[in-house]
Amino acid sequence: MPEPTEDRSEFRNGPERCDAPEFRKDSIVDRWVIIARHRAERPHELVESTPQRPAGSICPFCEGHEQQTTQEILAIRAPGTQPNTPGWNVRVVPNKYPAVLSNAEEAVPPAAGFYQSQPGFGAHEVIIESPRHVISTTDESVETLTEVLWIYRQRLIELRRDSRLKYGLIFKNVGAAAGASIEHTHSQLVAMPLVPTSVAEELSAAEHFYRANGRCIYCQLLADELSFGQRIVFESPGFVAFCPYAPRFPFETWIVPRLHASHYETLAEGGAAELAMALRTVVAKIEVTLARPAYNYIIHTGSFDTFGVEHYHWHIEIIPRVTKTAGFEWGTGFFINPMPPEEAAGVLRACDTMS
Amino acid sequence: MPEPTEDRSEFRNGPERCDAPEFRKDSIVDRWVIIARHRAERPHELVESTPQRPAGSICPFCEGHEQQTTQEILAIRAPGTQPNTPGWNVRVVPNKYPAVLSNAEEAVPPAAGFYQSQPGFGAHEVIIESPRHVISTTDESVETLTEVLWIYRQRLIELRRDSRLKYGLIFKNVGAAAGASIEHTHSQLVAMPLVPTSVAEELSAAEHFYRANGRCIYCQLLADELSFGQRIVFESPGFVAFCPYAPRFPFETWIVPRLHASHYETLAEGGAAELAMALRTVVAKIEVTLARPAYNYIIHTGSFDTFGVEHYHWHIEIIPRVTKTAGFEWGTGFFINPMPPEEAAGVLRACDTMS
Repeated sequence: MPEPTEDRSEFRNGPERCDAPEFRKDSIVDRWVIIARHRAERPHELVESTPQRPAGSICPFCEGHEQQTTQEILAIRAPGTQPNTPGWNVRVVPNKYPAVLSNAEEAVPPAAGFYQSQPGFGAHEVIIESPRHVISTTDESVETLTEVLWIYRQRLIELRRDSRLKYGLIFKNVGAAAGASIEHTHSQLVAMPLVPTSVAEELSAAEHFYRANGRCIYCQLLADELSFGQRIVFESPGFVAFCPYAPRFPFETWIVPRLHASHYETLAEGGAAELAMALRTVVAKIEVTLARPAYNYIIHTGSFDTFGVEHYHWHIEIIPRVTKTAGFEWGTGFFINPMPPEEAAGVLRACDTMS
Repeated sequence: MPEPTEDRSEFRNGPERCDAPEFRKDSIVDRWVIIARHRAERPHELVESTPQRPAGSICPFCEGHEQQTTQEILAIRAPGTQPNTPGWNVRVVPNKYPAVLSNAEEAVPPAAGFYQSQPGFGAHEVIIESPRHVISTTDESVETLTEVLWIYRQRLIELRRDSRLKYGLIFKNVGAAAGASIEHTHSQLVAMPLVPTSVAEELSAAEHFYRANGRCIYCQLLADELSFGQRIVFESPGFVAFCPYAPRFPFETWIVPRLHASHYETLAEGGAAELAMALRTVVAKIEVTLARPAYNYIIHTGSFDTFGVEHYHWHIEIIPRVTKTAGFEWGTGFFINPMPPEEAAGVLRACDTMS
């Protein structure tokens, strides 16, 4: 066994440093972990047996409980109503238990070398999508969902002004199996000082394809899928929903704008209404087919330090969470999917959400 | 939107091709998916609400139900007893619902180009670790666990003789949240014609470190952790268990042999007994601390086409499954972990499994 010869004191990160969120990098593979100590108090509280707070007096996201959340950043509310009081339809607040903190920069001095660490700096916001205690995107009207999708755009435009932030990730968790810790319908935005690994891989692969082929890989995929037809789930004038060729999860469905656009921020007002209709329809088809499963959706968009690039194409990935990731997935990075996407798309395409 | 100009008929994979397992590669990022159609019959059966078959007459892994499994490959059994009858202590059978098939090579013709596909060729075996209906590694004696660990080695040695196979992954799923579909204690071995993505990344990173520093990165990590001390969970003459610096999951713990060895197959008979004691002790500490959570363990070992390499070091990663992966993890590839490893290791180190 080799003896360490140089000064290796940089790995001496002790628990006293962990009260603010800290990004740590695995020293072997390129994998970042956010240690966010304040999210758990004691070991047994980690066991998420009853993770979802029900309706009633204790839901902090219901109208009338505005004092239980942090101060609102933005809200769509009735004329004459005051911030942090009833009268709103959609409300944006900082996450009470953030994975990243806007003042974290001073809290944790960065470490370097073999044991890489940096402060968990960034913004973590919650978009509360209804004043009523409903659970899923399909419990919202198309009008409200349009407002939500428009707010995503507004927050991305606002956050990209901060030159320290490199990426804004928007996602939604519905159901305990999808990681939701509060039942009341909401989505989240995490803005980070680095482009996350999965996004960087996707951007880099798309750029590589563009250089080799002179066209956007997503435009190509879209043309292929429309021509093939068997994996199409839903079409509207501006959007196409399809099950991808190599889906990780059964009934995984992507919604892609027909016209090339690298950034979600380019969404137009009419586009938001049409996207709301498409998203609501696809989620409804999944919910009818799988009896309201847990699901996540994630907006894939370009990084804050670029805009209007030719090689990338924003889209939404919807992943129903009916299968569990097991040792095989964690050991390989491969996914086992029991449902061919051609068959899943056929079922979803035929599914009538009106009945 | 660009018009496809060349013949793109290769993407026309229809459902009629999916009865045998098929490896499909995402055309954008380097991510393989195994479409294993026969594992699900109808969409609603995908919802794993009651995934675990209980004890009693319907558990196919209990002694006396040998006819409910496929024919045994190997077993440790009492003298004079016949294969596929009672009298065994540990039993290896092909998985009844395999993710890969030894005869899949002929079943699915490989596709090439943009939409990459190849037959789901390989071996998928189940190691039934007890004739009794028990659930966890800690329900087995150290003697039985020693036999199990020795059988892992035997199967890897046997499977690596097939030059078409490049990697053998051994893992265990305990509990529904960890992806176990059968409750009765068992582990699995999947041998594949390619080195899986996560393993390839780890091997390549370790090789890169070796070239730059002239030593094994795991030997270095081990020396650092022993010197630092705060992340150590358990030590025995031949093995060290510690919580890694950047763990994905709360209480994630790795067991690493002190002496450099790239392949699990080099485990000696005495080493198997000592490893059994270490593995059982660490899992017991996790079970006492987290009230018997679901967990996975995965053996990380070198690929079949190498042996005795200087840059890699086999080890076992144990991941308790008390947190859920949510939209953030799927969107970033980052993990949020509420438990600093220094604190987790302190709790596990102090945990007395005898009481």
